[in-house]
Amino acid sequence: MKLKKVLLATTNAGKVKEMKRLLGFYGIDAEVPDEDLRIEEGSSSFLENAYLKAQAYWERYRKPTLADDSGLVVPALGGYPGIFSSRFYSHEYGGKEEVIATKDDANIRKVLRLMKEVKDRRATFVAFLVLNLGYSGYWSKGECNGVILTEPKGSGGFGYDPIFQPEGSEKSMAELTPEEKDLLSHRGKAVRNLMSIIKNGGLT
Amino acid sequence: MKLKKVLLATTNAGKVKEMKRLLGFYGIDAEVPDEDLRIEEGSSSFLENAYLKAQAYWERYRKPTLADDSGLVVPALGGYPGIFSSRFYSHEYGGKEEVIATKDDANIRKVLRLMKEVKDRRATFVAFLVLNLGYSGYWSKGECNGVILTEPKGSGGFGYDPIFQPEGSEKSMAELTPEEKDLLSHRGKAVRNLMSIIKNGGLT
Repeated sequence: MKLKKVLLATTNAGKVKEMKRLLGFYGIDAEVPDEDLRIEEGSSSFLENAYLKAQAYWERYRKPTLADDSGLVVPALGGYPGIFSSRFYSHEYGGKEEVIATKDDANIRKVLRLMKEVKDRRATFVAFLVLNLGYSGYWSKGECNGVILTEPKGSGGFGYDPIFQPEGSEKSMAELTPEEKDLLSHRGKAVRNLMSIIKNGGLT
Repeated sequence: MKLKKVLLATTNAGKVKEMKRLLGFYGIDAEVPDEDLRIEEGSSSFLENAYLKAQAYWERYRKPTLADDSGLVVPALGGYPGIFSSRFYSHEYGGKEEVIATKDDANIRKVLRLMKEVKDRRATFVAFLVLNLGYSGYWSKGECNGVILTEPKGSGGFGYDPIFQPEGSEKSMAELTPEEKDLLSHRGKAVRNLMSIIKNGGLT
């Protein structure tokens, strides 16, 4: 069984960059779609959202398609931003946040505002991957535990990386080198879990 | 890669019987759990429900776990019974139905009542499978198109089988022999799609 190339079910620049790096390590070429299908993330779960994206791109291109749905789960915020991570700034929970610079920035400001007086700063980055080959495929997940910082640090990565400090690290996710981030991150773990099952079936 | 045995994430007698038969064909032993974890099918999708069941049994038993979530999708009923198929009788949509004999019987009476004056009798049986190996696994789906009959026929199968006639067949699903049902059914197709990817990775 050989997997040489997958179509990424996303046009998000941050995800594309990481996926190309993570999959390249396994000799897999990650292709970026030439159009953004703008899938409504209408479901209530990371897995289902990943499936919906993978399915939409599969129906359009009929190629092995890899989708990622991921987010930051904060127990003190009742699990939010969770599946709403990428558009938390516009979600009614906790009041909307104006986009001044970027959406990432607005999302971060909202989490910091809601966490201002909060002692329990635990958080988990969660990623679900779905590889869609048509009527069947693979799935995997990866998690990264950490804490929410009181202010942004670092300029690497994307999304909530500047305010997330992984367990065992003294740097924010945005201060890590790409190699360090891949080793610790939810997405890095999810890709390794996926490749492990693709390479050996996970059933040895 | 060898898969000799899976734990079924169900205690539903009808599903267990079919799964044992379908997997047995591939030399796989389907084990039945010694307790019913009674997973709340709380999600809005077949895939997510299958994952939640597979995950709950995996957490309890730490063995390769196979879950099925399936249902009857009727366009004229706005997609119902859908993910509510097994407990449609108690769902508020279209009014509840009393359980006199079995739940299957109450579900069937409700669909027939709601479809009484309905001309468009198309329906699709849908099954999603999730094989959970811990942090990764396989998924597959299978569909069977057909029509809703005006009254129950046959005593084989389970669930809505007596009122569902597959496309190209002149018998209801409940009138088919087990071998005929496996060839046509959503579950049969889903198992073959799953085994195809497990056997050869689906990426040849």
